[in-house]
Amino acid sequence: MYSVLAVGAHPDDIELGCGGALAAHRAAGDAVTMLVLTGGQNGPGSVAERAQEQEEAAAQLGAVLLWGHAVDCAITADAGTVSSVEQVIEAVAADVVYVHAPEDSHQDHRAVAAATVSAARRGPRVLHYQSPSTLAFRPSVYVDVAAHLDRKLAALACHRSQVHGSAMVDPEVVAAAARYFGAQARIRYAEAFTPARFVWDLGRIPAAAPGRVAVAPGQSAAPPW
Amino acid sequence: MYSVLAVGAHPDDIELGCGGALAAHRAAGDAVTMLVLTGGQNGPGSVAERAQEQEEAAAQLGAVLLWGHAVDCAITADAGTVSSVEQVIEAVAADVVYVHAPEDSHQDHRAVAAATVSAARRGPRVLHYQSPSTLAFRPSVYVDVAAHLDRKLAALACHRSQVHGSAMVDPEVVAAAARYFGAQARIRYAEAFTPARFVWDLGRIPAAAPGRVAVAPGQSAAPPW
Amino acid sequence: MYSVLAVGAHPDDIELGCGGALAAHRAAGDAVTMLVLTGGQNGPGSVAERAQEQEEAAAQLGAVLLWGHAVDCAITADAGTVSSVEQVIEAVAADVVYVHAPEDSHQDHRAVAAATVSAARRGPRVLHYQSPSTLAFRPSVYVDVAAHLDRKLAALACHRSQVHGSAMVDPEVVAAAARYFGAQARIRYAEAFTPARFVWDLGRIPAAAPGRVAVAPGQSAAPPW
Amino acid sequence: MYSVLAVGAHPDDIELGCGGALAAHRAAGDAVTMLVLTGGQNGPGSVAERAQEQEEAAAQLGAVLLWGHAVDCAITADAGTVSSVEQVIEAVAADVVYVHAPEDSHQDHRAVAAATVSAARRGPRVLHYQSPSTLAFRPSVYVDVAAHLDRKLAALACHRSQVHGSAMVDPEVVAAAARYFGAQARIRYAEAFTPARFVWDLGRIPAAAPGRVAVAPGQSAAPPW
Amino acid sequence: MYSVLAVGAHPDDIELGCGGALAAHRAAGDAVTMLVLTGGQNGPGSVAERAQEQEEAAAQLGAVLLWGHAVDCAITADAGTVSSVEQVIEAVAADVVYVHAPEDSHQDHRAVAAATVSAARRGPRVLHYQSPSTLAFRPSVYVDVAAHLDRKLAALACHRSQVHGSAMVDPEVVAAAARYFGAQARIRYAEAFTPARFVWDLGRIPAAAPGRVAVAPGQSAAPPW
Amino acid sequence: MYSVLAVGAHPDDIELGCGGALAAHRAAGDAVTMLVLTGGQNGPGSVAERAQEQEEAAAQLGAVLLWGHAVDCAITADAGTVSSVEQVIEAVAADVVYVHAPEDSHQDHRAVAAATVSAARRGPRVLHYQSPSTLAFRPSVYVDVAAHLDRKLAALACHRSQVHGSAMVDPEVVAAAARYFGAQARIRYAEAFTPARFVWDLGRIPAAAPGRVAVAPGQSAAPPW
Repeated sequence: MYSVLAVGAHPDDIELGCGGALAAHRAAGDAVTMLVLTGGQNGPGSVAERAQEQEEAAAQLGAVLLWGHAVDCAITADAGTVSSVEQVIEAVAADVVYVHAPEDSHQDHRAVAAATVSAARRGPRVLHYQSPSTLAFRPSVYVDVAAHLDRKLAALACHRSQVHGSAMVDPEVVAAAARYFGAQARIRYAEAFTPARFVWDLGRIPAAAPGRVAVAPGQSAAPPW
Repeated sequence: MYSVLAVGAHPDDIELGCGGALAAHRAAGDAVTMLVLTGGQNGPGSVAERAQEQEEAAAQLGAVLLWGHAVDCAITADAGTVSSVEQVIEAVAADVVYVHAPEDSHQDHRAVAAATVSAARRGPRVLHYQSPSTLAFRPSVYVDVAAHLDRKLAALACHRSQVHGSAMVDPEVVAAAARYFGAQARIRYAEAFTPARFVWDLGRIPAAAPGRVAVAPGQSAAPPW
Repeated sequence: MYSVLAVGAHPDDIELGCGGALAAHRAAGDAVTMLVLTGGQNGPGSVAERAQEQEEAAAQLGAVLLWGHAVDCAITADAGTVSSVEQVIEAVAADVVYVHAPEDSHQDHRAVAAATVSAARRGPRVLHYQSPSTLAFRPSVYVDVAAHLDRKLAALACHRSQVHGSAMVDPEVVAAAARYFGAQARIRYAEAFTPARFVWDLGRIPAAAPGRVAVAPGQSAAPPW
Repeated sequence: MYSVLAVGAHPDDIELGCGGALAAHRAAGDAVTMLVLTGGQNGPGSVAERAQEQEEAAAQLGAVLLWGHAVDCAITADAGTVSSVEQVIEAVAADVVYVHAPEDSHQDHRAVAAATVSAARRGPRVLHYQSPSTLAFRPSVYVDVAAHLDRKLAALACHRSQVHGSAMVDPEVVAAAARYFGAQARIRYAEAFTPARFVWDLGRIPAAAPGRVAVAPGQSAAPPW
Repeated sequence: MYSVLAVGAHPDDIELGCGGALAAHRAAGDAVTMLVLTGGQNGPGSVAERAQEQEEAAAQLGAVLLWGHAVDCAITADAGTVSSVEQVIEAVAADVVYVHAPEDSHQDHRAVAAATVSAARRGPRVLHYQSPSTLAFRPSVYVDVAAHLDRKLAALACHRSQVHGSAMVDPEVVAAAARYFGAQARIRYAEAFTPARFVWDLGRIPAAAPGRVAVAPGQSAAPPW
Repeated sequence: MYSVLAVGAHPDDIELGCGGALAAHRAAGDAVTMLVLTGGQNGPGSVAERAQEQEEAAAQLGAVLLWGHAVDCAITADAGTVSSVEQVIEAVAADVVYVHAPEDSHQDHRAVAAATVSAARRGPRVLHYQSPSTLAFRPSVYVDVAAHLDRKLAALACHRSQVHGSAMVDPEVVAAAARYFGAQARIRYAEAFTPARFVWDLGRIPAAAPGRVAVAPGQSAAPPW
């Protein structure tokens, strides 16, 4: 079992970026924690409303929800922010950390990406997710979300104030991106990530019955010369 | 269980690039096939000698060894090469393909990288490994080879004609690179890869006992506002 | 009026990559030529069938269709290919050239991209489009295809042998990508391009009535110091 | 008609980076606004002098001049700066935004680039211009300034305190760069830009008389098989 | 003789990144100054201890040691930091500046890299070195440290509080990286750098006896046509 | 003394790309060899004319001229080309190799860049120069050519058939680029290069009298805490 931590600047950021992967982690038996650093004070919707929406969304995803103390539009990647993320990483003993992509037009997203990469400096897996404001994104790591896209969209739908009030939050685009990234990954629906660092954990894959390869190990075909 | 295919231009390329990961795959119960596209006609050592060395190395790694029909220093990324790699990918139903990095000063390495990416175009995982002649390499995916470095070096040592005859094949550098990449991955010894495309297979990770996270899912900490 | 040339390796490549932009060019009064370099001998469908499909698709887009003499899966970026594309560029006096993106897992796509960039070396606008096999794509130039997506899909549908026979040709993905790129471009549906070289032709934009800016030119607000 | 906004950190930055393009926009009938965020308190020349110089330069370019309230060498890409640029973008309903390139050794230039990309997050066209302190610059979008280079140099010459007092402001380099970028663009003199996002507005190009292409649309040459 | 300045955020950063190159500079007769911007207040070891360690290390390298006034984990790339580095650059008339790489997970390293690039904006040589926390590093400039690796390790060993107290400071990794970079540089041990700007000073290389080339200048072999 | 080898596809390529640096090498006492791989059969001017022009240009630069056997527009980066360049590298014991940049719209330039990087795989210094057809160029290594620009232009002027017959060969652009790159390098005129691999040879710099730094080595300023 992995302990998975997803970090986002505002309510709804995590669902948009990696809600499907989080659902897939839960389905695989992993623990999932969401750390939302601000209350989204500047968006449409009151802070109370947004807190309620975020709690519903976390429940949809079967995730523990934690809140940071930063202020919307004023997050900085300073020692305080690094430390607050680091405390959560240690508290949940995170094996996998998901966070915003670093090249983003929203200053909060850039700051959260930088602070989280600092906070996770000793960990083996940091994956960057895309936001609607991400400027450049050339993913290479994918998670199959075909079985989890509905849940992602349901979690996103909990953010009523954003879905109705923000042009940037559009479930149609979320579904389109999942299909587009799915085609890149040679599957149907995918979420896409750029790895800051990803240690592929082969040991966790249980050995299954051998036999798909016709020639047995140690037994080699003759070279053609 | 995965079916893993490693593709290299010459005898010893695969061991240098991903011998530790192949050993890790075997230890995890995966099937491993090595496809060596040429007999290394131009290197030090006769073709017969090198074939023998390569067979010993494959046995060390517990891998099936297959040979391609290309000629050393004359591989091209044309339809014939693509097709020959593709046939092996299909024959072993490869889930994971390892191959040279595309930016390399050896023309054969560039050609094999390009042809294999073409051949694996429908597959979910293509990882590029480094060679001594790779020009630029900025890895983001790592495999822990701490338990497998000895075996990698043993497999490499089978290539006697190269270890003694080629300045490019130096076990000291192989061990140094494993330690350097290990530090990048926050572990002791690692092999490093650049992913052309990597679908992370969460479903294969068995659920373990829950409980590392103090707060239960669905139960959230109050926001601090 | 621009003379627009789109170059593709196989029947259907151009429609997939820039069919919407070509329709937009036609709607803006530009002349559009499609140069398909091979008959697609290796795909599903006979060459005669594919030629017929390509002609229907070109008619859908209101484009002149020209055929090259290259062979499917065997295109090389040599002087012959460069010269054949260059002749068409000169024949139609192309102001704008669309062509495959250079990083692609299909060897023909890579070759056509390279040869066309050579052939268009004196021209002011070369835009690379994405194919399903493109490996890395980080676009920055977009064309609004909201009014032209239906026509793009209609042109693509002409390629019956591919839509039914190739897993890589999927109208659902085409529509999803248009929506995804549209969100990137802050519009609804877009095609996306990476510019090799793009001279923005301001002189072609007709001057309209002034007045949107409250302060008149030459008249400046006082500095706040 | 476009409403064009150019944003710069200090008096003279805009002229150095995109003075020729602004002149070209004016010649094409577009409205042009310049937003200078600081008074250049730290450079050679008094603030009053520099304000006067900047006003003359704006008049040369036929542009409206607006001043921001930031302080030289102390601009930060925070919510206040973002908001102040955003207000101008909205006030002039900017269709095109020019701003510093993000990789620059001057901290103010980096901050203005980041804040403006945030402020323009909903707009279709953001082009980055080069400054003498830009660190890396690999342009792909060009504007022909052959007819406007004299005016650019005249606008730059208004900044007497800088041309005489700063080693970084050298009209000789400005002219050399225009010729160098012109060669890249296959024209004589150009300004060069890296697009953060550029929606090419085909609909604004008026249809002209058809006829340059010999074969009529819908009528296709026979394939050569 | 060059005047070389190395800038680092914390005690031990410079030794880790370019200690071997500094020793090589000293051996070549260059003057070397180290500017350490903070006392490393947050690491293991007291500030007094660390100051003592840093002085010993500077003595090992034959370098002048200067201290900045910044605070550990709170460095910002603002005008004050830029100015403090700039004063040292001017005081020592630095010809060569070594500093952290810009993509680093430690916020102080990023800030020092940015501030130093600003401070060195008029200088001809700025080389970025790697730290254990550097995120991406693709070096192209190397210095041969085969004769100086022992001294680098001796200087590093002076930082007793770090070598024993910080997992990030590991002499084994330092030696491994030197061997790995050495292989990249086609020598035995190297330090590796990414150049922000590097003017290669040919004039400083004294002319030696001619004769290695058989054909004399001006005398040309016949073309083979 | 260095042995410097410059490799180019056609007569005039080397002068355009690094003629100034070659003159600077000669002035520093280095031996310089030019290897021109084709006779430029396809350009304006007869092969005999171009051979004569190239010989005059080599004499201008004080360089030995060698000719390869490749054919204009048909160079491939195969083993034959690699081997022919490698033989020259070995014959002149090259310490420094200059060659085309790899991203270029001319197929010959791409092939020569790739083949030369292969041929120079054991050498410590490979620098890529720009051609008029180079597609992307982000240099970081510079050579001061202020004292050598006249000679570069004189060498280029020897290629009468190209200066008069090819739009791509324009001395005005050459001078403009030298000034533009000079500004980047913080000097007056420079040639610019991207390093494939550059070992900076500190040992060759003779020690000069110490004393520019006020504080003596080993003697450190007190930390400010």
